[in-house]
Amino acid sequence: MKRILVINGPNLNLLGSREPEIYGSTTLAEIEADLRTTAAAFDVAIDFVQSNHEGELVDAIQQARGSVDGAIINLGAYTHTSLAIRDALLAAPLPFVEVHLSNIFRRDAARHHSLIADLAIGIIAGLGPHGYLLALDALVAAIADE
Amino acid sequence: MKRILVINGPNLNLLGSREPEIYGSTTLAEIEADLRTTAAAFDVAIDFVQSNHEGELVDAIQQARGSVDGAIINLGAYTHTSLAIRDALLAAPLPFVEVHLSNIFRRDAARHHSLIADLAIGIIAGLGPHGYLLALDALVAAIADE
Amino acid sequence: MKRILVINGPNLNLLGSREPEIYGSTTLAEIEADLRTTAAAFDVAIDFVQSNHEGELVDAIQQARGSVDGAIINLGAYTHTSLAIRDALLAAPLPFVEVHLSNIFRRDAARHHSLIADLAIGIIAGLGPHGYLLALDALVAAIADE
Amino acid sequence: MKRILVINGPNLNLLGSREPEIYGSTTLAEIEADLRTTAAAFDVAIDFVQSNHEGELVDAIQQARGSVDGAIINLGAYTHTSLAIRDALLAAPLPFVEVHLSNIFRRDAARHHSLIADLAIGIIAGLGPHGYLLALDALVAAIADE
Amino acid sequence: MKRILVINGPNLNLLGSREPEIYGSTTLAEIEADLRTTAAAFDVAIDFVQSNHEGELVDAIQQARGSVDGAIINLGAYTHTSLAIRDALLAAPLPFVEVHLSNIFRRDAARHHSLIADLAIGIIAGLGPHGYLLALDALVAAIADE
Amino acid sequence: MKRILVINGPNLNLLGSREPEIYGSTTLAEIEADLRTTAAAFDVAIDFVQSNHEGELVDAIQQARGSVDGAIINLGAYTHTSLAIRDALLAAPLPFVEVHLSNIFRRDAARHHSLIADLAIGIIAGLGPHGYLLALDALVAAIADE
Amino acid sequence: MKRILVINGPNLNLLGSREPEIYGSTTLAEIEADLRTTAAAFDVAIDFVQSNHEGELVDAIQQARGSVDGAIINLGAYTHTSLAIRDALLAAPLPFVEVHLSNIFRRDAARHHSLIADLAIGIIAGLGPHGYLLALDALVAAIADE
Amino acid sequence: MKRILVINGPNLNLLGSREPEIYGSTTLAEIEADLRTTAAAFDVAIDFVQSNHEGELVDAIQQARGSVDGAIINLGAYTHTSLAIRDALLAAPLPFVEVHLSNIFRRDAARHHSLIADLAIGIIAGLGPHGYLLALDALVAAIADE
Amino acid sequence: MKRILVINGPNLNLLGSREPEIYGSTTLAEIEADLRTTAAAFDVAIDFVQSNHEGELVDAIQQARGSVDGAIINLGAYTHTSLAIRDALLAAPLPFVEVHLSNIFRRDAARHHSLIADLAIGIIAGLGPHGYLLALDALVAAIADE
Amino acid sequence: MKRILVINGPNLNLLGSREPEIYGSTTLAEIEADLRTTAAAFDVAIDFVQSNHEGELVDAIQQARGSVDGAIINLGAYTHTSLAIRDALLAAPLPFVEVHLSNIFRRDAARHHSLIADLAIGIIAGLGPHGYLLALDALVAAIADE
Amino acid sequence: MKRILVINGPNLNLLGSREPEIYGSTTLAEIEADLRTTAAAFDVAIDFVQSNHEGELVDAIQQARGSVDGAIINLGAYTHTSLAIRDALLAAPLPFVEVHLSNIFRRDAARHHSLIADLAIGIIAGLGPHGYLLALDALVAAIADE
Amino acid sequence: MKRILVINGPNLNLLGSREPEIYGSTTLAEIEADLRTTAAAFDVAIDFVQSNHEGELVDAIQQARGSVDGAIINLGAYTHTSLAIRDALLAAPLPFVEVHLSNIFRRDAARHHSLIADLAIGIIAGLGPHGYLLALDALVAAIADE
Repeated sequence: MKRILVINGPNLNLLGSREPEIYGSTTLAEIEADLRTTAAAFDVAIDFVQSNHEGELVDAIQQARGSVDGAIINLGAYTHTSLAIRDALLAAPLPFVEVHLSNIFRRDAARHHSLIADLAIGIIAGLGPHGYLLALDALVAAIADE
Repeated sequence: MKRILVINGPNLNLLGSREPEIYGSTTLAEIEADLRTTAAAFDVAIDFVQSNHEGELVDAIQQARGSVDGAIINLGAYTHTSLAIRDALLAAPLPFVEVHLSNIFRRDAARHHSLIADLAIGIIAGLGPHGYLLALDALVAAIADE
Repeated sequence: MKRILVINGPNLNLLGSREPEIYGSTTLAEIEADLRTTAAAFDVAIDFVQSNHEGELVDAIQQARGSVDGAIINLGAYTHTSLAIRDALLAAPLPFVEVHLSNIFRRDAARHHSLIADLAIGIIAGLGPHGYLLALDALVAAIADE
Repeated sequence: MKRILVINGPNLNLLGSREPEIYGSTTLAEIEADLRTTAAAFDVAIDFVQSNHEGELVDAIQQARGSVDGAIINLGAYTHTSLAIRDALLAAPLPFVEVHLSNIFRRDAARHHSLIADLAIGIIAGLGPHGYLLALDALVAAIADE
Repeated sequence: MKRILVINGPNLNLLGSREPEIYGSTTLAEIEADLRTTAAAFDVAIDFVQSNHEGELVDAIQQARGSVDGAIINLGAYTHTSLAIRDALLAAPLPFVEVHLSNIFRRDAARHHSLIADLAIGIIAGLGPHGYLLALDALVAAIADE
Repeated sequence: MKRILVINGPNLNLLGSREPEIYGSTTLAEIEADLRTTAAAFDVAIDFVQSNHEGELVDAIQQARGSVDGAIINLGAYTHTSLAIRDALLAAPLPFVEVHLSNIFRRDAARHHSLIADLAIGIIAGLGPHGYLLALDALVAAIADE
Repeated sequence: MKRILVINGPNLNLLGSREPEIYGSTTLAEIEADLRTTAAAFDVAIDFVQSNHEGELVDAIQQARGSVDGAIINLGAYTHTSLAIRDALLAAPLPFVEVHLSNIFRRDAARHHSLIADLAIGIIAGLGPHGYLLALDALVAAIADE
Repeated sequence: MKRILVINGPNLNLLGSREPEIYGSTTLAEIEADLRTTAAAFDVAIDFVQSNHEGELVDAIQQARGSVDGAIINLGAYTHTSLAIRDALLAAPLPFVEVHLSNIFRRDAARHHSLIADLAIGIIAGLGPHGYLLALDALVAAIADE
Repeated sequence: MKRILVINGPNLNLLGSREPEIYGSTTLAEIEADLRTTAAAFDVAIDFVQSNHEGELVDAIQQARGSVDGAIINLGAYTHTSLAIRDALLAAPLPFVEVHLSNIFRRDAARHHSLIADLAIGIIAGLGPHGYLLALDALVAAIADE
Repeated sequence: MKRILVINGPNLNLLGSREPEIYGSTTLAEIEADLRTTAAAFDVAIDFVQSNHEGELVDAIQQARGSVDGAIINLGAYTHTSLAIRDALLAAPLPFVEVHLSNIFRRDAARHHSLIADLAIGIIAGLGPHGYLLALDALVAAIADE
Repeated sequence: MKRILVINGPNLNLLGSREPEIYGSTTLAEIEADLRTTAAAFDVAIDFVQSNHEGELVDAIQQARGSVDGAIINLGAYTHTSLAIRDALLAAPLPFVEVHLSNIFRRDAARHHSLIADLAIGIIAGLGPHGYLLALDALVAAIADE
Repeated sequence: MKRILVINGPNLNLLGSREPEIYGSTTLAEIEADLRTTAAAFDVAIDFVQSNHEGELVDAIQQARGSVDGAIINLGAYTHTSLAIRDALLAAPLPFVEVHLSNIFRRDAARHHSLIADLAIGIIAGLGPHGYLLALDALVAAIADE
């Protein structure tokens, strides 16, 4: 049975109340519940981590090495600033799909560049909570091939 | 019954034989067949257009106005150079999901910037032919809300 | 009797319905009718071409060589991207006035630079359909001097 | 009866003798006379101000507030450097048409960017003294609508 | 017997009359006649395509795949703007020599960068019609090695 | 009674001994004592947080939501690098005044740009410990209006 | 008794009516009256100068030399363009606090850079008319130390 | 007898007391006296103008047209910002030598670019008051040739 | 007896298994053991800290102040992004040698710029684990001089 | 009889052993022998110079003035850095064809810009040793016309 | 008796025949003769060096150390490219005046920046051979003060 | 027995007297003597070359090919400008350690980029003459492995 880790970065714990015109009204707990249901349907195990701390996200990625088969990653603001998390993904390679709730290309230019996108299998942006489920679908297909 | 148009731009007619290490070995006909099957399951009508000509893509988008409920768009190289197609999408607004077969963020910098991404509902890149099916899933959900 | 050609580029066929808050509600047919009336008053012959295809606009400019005394040109999005049309105007020099319906300096930076403005006699922007009539006035005066 | 103010910036007092290969041989007095004639035909009152001093142009625009219905503005070199005049136009909003005698897009790059163009109704450049008359035509039409 | 395709882009059909101070007075038909004579001497078959339409050039390159052994390519203005033609050359790899009649490095900066030069065997620029004959010489030598 | 939170970022715990020629010899404890006195005079409650950890500052801002009426924020080096803290301020909007002890415009260019200044009510820089007291004055006035 | 000069630049004479959504409805006369009251409380003499003319502001700063102990300066648009006023402040050094009514960091990028900020004791921006009073407080404290 | 005009820009009236470590302790009056003596020796008439007002410098250059044979110009800060003075020099061409007291290449980058240097016969910088005398020597030689 | 602190940043705990083609197969523990041996030979005390958390590295540097005579610092990815750690080194000055295992100049451009290099005594890059020993040698020599 | 000089710059003496995957295995002596044979067939005299010293190449070009009718020039790395050699070619104008063995557009960006290309009749790049023979062909044709 | 060295860089040996429209028709020997005459009048010894070789110019500057009191330096193209000569001037400090025959600000942008100007006492450009004599005048005055 | 070549570039012959506050007071001869002693201890042969001439450094590197096992290279100013020396190192690959006496990251930006650093095994900067000895240590270790 494959194991998947869902990693969410800073401020994603506020989903539902944070800038609802950009991020919608679904909470992170609701997204995680939907992912759990879908993962069960795909017959894969799923775990979750969320942190506002760059270092904890580095730690989480390092610890995933060996124990996890793939990841769904939404780094929030660290997408655009954290070379340290990029290095963790280089140091502990792991197939992953990058997800963004909002269409980052509609936002300010600092949000257009992802420091991890070239390491991802693929990117899904702008599709809201649904994007996580599509990412799970894509990830399960990708790691099934291996 | 909702109608969806799938628009593919230049050189996508060569899928399967074109740079298979980047684009894979699935042909455009195969992708279209899969989309047709999935559309049937979603109970939506689906049409396809592919052209190497920027002007024909402008024409196609203009003609979609009024007759189509949403689109899946992969403009190939015109993603990065065609302000005229962007203008067609502004002139004939249409909910659409942007798809790229390859992970454009792993490629040369000229491929990182899409002239239409900010007009899309969302973007799916790097997930190969599977990306079109996920886009259909997302698009059906998005236009169902309207 | 002098002959004048009015060249309109991509998406201008949608005038009246395209982004009316930017381009107004007058249709291209109405603009052409007004130009025809004014041209008659100036006692000049007038013809019209509109295309969404860059190549057809190159062809039209090449064919105008020798048979036309001046042009009014609104290239739409190709204003900002088509070096090929610039080359056609260099290869087949023709006195022309460049027109834009909207005030391009209020729009995004990619719209501020025209690839043909330095080849024009003059530029009229932001004055809506009226701008075409003023351009005709200016062009007739300019080619009368020759 | 509508009142229009024509504002000319630095060195335009030298028209006729200043760089005639760029600006032609018509003097500012001749342009003003032609404008006066045309204004009479349009049944609008017209006034003129010319100054080489940035501060005097700021003062003139401030004083126009409330007493003038529209303006024709050619700021000469201050077009490209005066944020203070831009601020005066923001502080004392006034419908205006921006005019340039020469085709500024044929000149050095520092002349391509206008600090006030986005505040104008429209821009007319490269059409020589005739451009002022066309601007008057456009301005009268625009303020008639209000 | 090897087959060679000579591809000429926009406005090259006007050779001889187009900007003769830059491009000289030889017509495209004369260049093609000279190439035909030289190809006969080299005992290779030669075909020609010229188009002002980016999409037709994409089509022509796609169709050359499998039926042609090498190409001589002068894309005119599309050299500097067409990522779609670059993609066609990536999708349908073909040994080719890039030719420019004028010395593109003497012209404006937008002409210095070729979007296809890195895909070419080599580049010949500034040598006028003679450049095509030298390119044929070089191409025949290059494809003879394969 | 209004509640105000004073947030200090990395290395501000060293005030008094850190680069005294830039930051002066007053300690953070002394600044906090002065703020406490002034807050009492204004009849507002005041709390303090200082951390060298970006994640803890994100946490603190998230927790302030709902329990605090306004903030005085000096993010130190994170002013210039932390998009995550900017996101926390977007996610948990809070009226705040940004303070810098030193005149950041006299320092290296990397210090001139604040990632949070556009979210602030206002900015006070270069006035040393006094700046905190002025910020409190301004903040009390601003939140009194609400 | 210390003497303080308050210098206001172009268009600040329009305060109260100028872009009230940015600058508020308080007039410059009201701000000056409040400053006079506060100055009296601090027991310092206060004078005022406002001009739309760059040269007059240079003159005023030169004349302040020797006769004034400090200044509060809001140069309006000249903040961002006047190297001559910067030179006057270098030539006639004077302790001063820079004030901006609006939060310049929320406005267009041309407003983010001040040509005099590095010469100031400190900067106060975004706090409206209150900012002048805080600046007076800060300036009195700063010059008391000398 | 040739007539020469010496034009000094903003803050040069403070020479001798302004930043003496950069500009030295000689006053403008002393420089003018030395120039008068040297002009007498060269048997040329010499006049002087100094202003802190950009517009007055434009006026002075316009008035010099026809009445003056050459100029020595030190625009101070307007060297780097005044396109209007550049235009006056274009509109009223006059042989001139540009002088700077300080070595502008040792100062901040904004001082390295002169907006009038390409219009000058030559440039002398960094040689202090002596530079004016050398400029007079060069100018007399240059206009003697005409 | 001198005390030296060796500070390693994010992902260096994975040495030996992390990207071995770049970083080699020696573990951090092995490097520390070698450093301990060499330190003993030099008769200096040596301590070690490694963290993936930017804030912990700031804390460690602050705590080193007063208790340590010098440092060997390899900040990993924070080398290129952490202004907060730079500030800690400014706030708590400490002689240090910067070390990088890999030749950062062979890697992507974002790795070429170190935010702390100008604060270091010197830099050693590309020499693998051996670089730490050379750094110890250099540091011991440098602090012996003090 | 025309005289031609072939000038080769730094490191071209190593041809054959230098980076053979880029430059091939033909030596400079072999290229010179082939050029001698071809020159004899064209009935032109040919000489050769190669140097690793920028100054010697400047000397060689100066000495060619008057004694040589044209040149074939491959400056190697000095193509991209030597303004002094450019100046020698400006000072001692000489018709020349620029040659590069490798396709410089496939290499790093610093190799894309030639400081002499705009002075050349034409450029031949990427065609290996054959390029020199084609350059000779082109040069003989070009100087025959004079 | 003071000793002065006049250093001329690449291609200045061709003066008189090199690009006479830029550099005039005076030869370097004539300039040197005039300098010798003027030096005699000033009672200073004068020597000359000219080289096309960067290394020889470095050598010459090194050797001047201790034996020469000042220099007049025109590095030609090395002005803009030679960091090694800059280093020689830093290593062997020598008061010098930088001279350029042409007005470098009228030429291409690569000629506007001098790598040694900030090390010079002053700069004289555009005044032709006369500029060397003025430089001698300035240099004699400057070194007399020491 | 391994052979090592130590290559020093322009102005390093002046060590000891050149800018001692940056480069220290040790002479090049003293550094060479120390290296000789250390080389003897390592049982390797060592040779030295120093030149101010770029071409001679190219020659030296070419001649080292085959006869030398490794190099220690300090190119001085050519580090930042000589593509020709880079090409020599590419043409004649040789394991080498790059050394800089000063901390180049404390100096002006032009000194931060080395054109050869990516070809080196490693880089040592800022450690003065000691850096050469550490480089020898590192180089001996590196070439022992081969």
